[in-house]
Amino acid sequence: MPPTITLTSDFGTADSYVAEMKGVLLRDGPADLRVLDLTHELPPFDVQAAALFLRSAVPRFPAGTIHLVVVDPGVGSDRAPLVVKLGEQLLVGPDNRQFGYLFDGQEEVYIIAADALGKHELSRTFHGRDLFAPVAARLAGGASPQTLATRVDSYQHLVFPMVEFVGDTLVGKVIHIDRFGNLITNIGQAALLDFLGPFPHDHAQVALGERTVRGIVGHYAQGKPGELLALVGSSGLLELALREGHAADKFVVQVGKHVRVQHGV
Amino acid sequence: MPPTITLTSDFGTADSYVAEMKGVLLRDGPADLRVLDLTHELPPFDVQAAALFLRSAVPRFPAGTIHLVVVDPGVGSDRAPLVVKLGEQLLVGPDNRQFGYLFDGQEEVYIIAADALGKHELSRTFHGRDLFAPVAARLAGGASPQTLATRVDSYQHLVFPMVEFVGDTLVGKVIHIDRFGNLITNIGQAALLDFLGPFPHDHAQVALGERTVRGIVGHYAQGKPGELLALVGSSGLLELALREGHAADKFVVQVGKHVRVQHGV
Amino acid sequence: MPPTITLTSDFGTADSYVAEMKGVLLRDGPADLRVLDLTHELPPFDVQAAALFLRSAVPRFPAGTIHLVVVDPGVGSDRAPLVVKLGEQLLVGPDNRQFGYLFDGQEEVYIIAADALGKHELSRTFHGRDLFAPVAARLAGGASPQTLATRVDSYQHLVFPMVEFVGDTLVGKVIHIDRFGNLITNIGQAALLDFLGPFPHDHAQVALGERTVRGIVGHYAQGKPGELLALVGSSGLLELALREGHAADKFVVQVGKHVRVQHGV
Repeated sequence: MPPTITLTSDFGTADSYVAEMKGVLLRDGPADLRVLDLTHELPPFDVQAAALFLRSAVPRFPAGTIHLVVVDPGVGSDRAPLVVKLGEQLLVGPDNRQFGYLFDGQEEVYIIAADALGKHELSRTFHGRDLFAPVAARLAGGASPQTLATRVDSYQHLVFPMVEFVGDTLVGKVIHIDRFGNLITNIGQAALLDFLGPFPHDHAQVALGERTVRGIVGHYAQGKPGELLALVGSSGLLELALREGHAADKFVVQVGKHVRVQHGV
Repeated sequence: MPPTITLTSDFGTADSYVAEMKGVLLRDGPADLRVLDLTHELPPFDVQAAALFLRSAVPRFPAGTIHLVVVDPGVGSDRAPLVVKLGEQLLVGPDNRQFGYLFDGQEEVYIIAADALGKHELSRTFHGRDLFAPVAARLAGGASPQTLATRVDSYQHLVFPMVEFVGDTLVGKVIHIDRFGNLITNIGQAALLDFLGPFPHDHAQVALGERTVRGIVGHYAQGKPGELLALVGSSGLLELALREGHAADKFVVQVGKHVRVQHGV
Repeated sequence: MPPTITLTSDFGTADSYVAEMKGVLLRDGPADLRVLDLTHELPPFDVQAAALFLRSAVPRFPAGTIHLVVVDPGVGSDRAPLVVKLGEQLLVGPDNRQFGYLFDGQEEVYIIAADALGKHELSRTFHGRDLFAPVAARLAGGASPQTLATRVDSYQHLVFPMVEFVGDTLVGKVIHIDRFGNLITNIGQAALLDFLGPFPHDHAQVALGERTVRGIVGHYAQGKPGELLALVGSSGLLELALREGHAADKFVVQVGKHVRVQHGV
């Protein structure tokens, strides 16, 4: 695979910030560099949204991919700049929990050295362009994390929000609402299998506030238009969806809303 | 040309869905794969908008391009997964009319075989990532449609909306409103020439509701700011536009609004 | 570096216009062409916003990069189509001030010849696709500006808005509001140093209407949440920002608002 850098940020593309980073990648990277946008539409400053995005996206990429991720509310402060080795992939970005859901105990975390780019006046407002992109470009050119950074044991973690058990009820919550209005919860397939037993889950009751869905189905097309469905989505998490409709708008749901699962009869 | 896959969807980029597909393309595709975004901003579930988009975009691409197109309201249902050979280009995506405006009777349509990816547990909610992207990646690697799919004669078509003739009037409608607020109709240049005779069409009258435009001009700059113009746009379709203004907002027009053309005097 | 074309426009990506240009670039360009999106989200018809965007982005790119820039309210009129040689980079697009902030007196400006593409029926509504993209593709393939275009001395300039001095006050204005709500002014770092003397500028007073900020800080994290900050941003311009907040929304500020700097005591 040619050297490949993906870009993830909360910059949007209406401003020049992403373009400036791309310029630096081409300037500092190897000639055959491949650059791919993942997203620039993360909510501003929302490192938890970044973590959730990366949890779904990064595992799909092959060995050798370098992910440049800049959601950086603390730019200029003393939060550390990181390179992370995750299996055979690399991550570059600030130490602020954005990588938190990717950490499995096998990760190697490095703090970028103050002289990684040589004698260099570092801007204090745009490390994406002036520090992280040049470092990603050098990694793409074959530099090892060890030559640019120093391994550390202490860095920010993020724990995937756990479900709770209250009496005979599994209680989770909506952690993300996607473009289609689907309500994605923190209730993973493993927790469902533990709690409900093996598939099918035709009798399970899933409650969103006062609204109750009976049965966990296999895909969106099993619903009638306008009917709320419960299913395990593409990230292995329970979600509530309307067939060809926007559940979040229709039922006025925001992130954080509780979702309850019961066995039913 | 190196192997090239374009991406078209209604996923937006705020969620991780497009990123996950890109990961699979890099993972399963040839090393020198080139990936280009066409759009991810199609209206959710709107296969007709996808068809209109592709009608303008696909013919511009060279032989060998592979277009991965996922607007898929029926994911998980029994709608067929397709590979289409269109001239020397390939299309990959669900059978749901999104390719309909591209079909000219010369297309070769194949249904992807159940075992195209080997023994494979297929997710039922995200075929874009789990079926269409891997198939596109294999095609980019040199696999032929015939090795992954079986040719069929029956698949979904879409007929471009026809204009009508009512007395001495050609009646069409607005089928798309672009970012600039231009009102793009289903009235093609050939229909105009048939109806009005050869250019110029200085006397033609084009009516949008009670508002009438005299003459069909050559380009936007021929209007005064604030003046409604009729012209044949870049897709060969009659459109109504405001010079440096947003016609749809100013005149409160939505898709479906009738547009009438008369000879004038 | 392989031949590289970047794309900048006000087209958005919901319509097919950008996709059509990409098709033409692949069709007419060299096999190893690399295509990168910079932005398609410039405000419609806003050549000054394009100029400001390019001012920050273009200098980051390496020698050999070709920038295709299409913000083109005058398409079809007699505004000239340009190729510009700027150092070792090339720009392609209409002559309408969009390149204005890049001009430093060293630029070489060429008008694209009427027969640059051979005998060719030129659409009058979409030069991005039908003229500028094919020309950019030929430049990427190794054609020199001189073979496609004729050097000229007369073309549109744009002067970066100057600050004023009124008594003991430096008066500038907000020229851009970014996605984070930061208020970016026309007051450059050089003007600040001239006016205030060397750093630090702890005593300077920066006024936005009736609201006054004391001191110019180094980065966003120096503020408390909810506190308005003045700092020199990543483009070397004074900006006003809220730490992890949206200054433009909170203080209801639009482009053009005056910003005043005084020495303080």
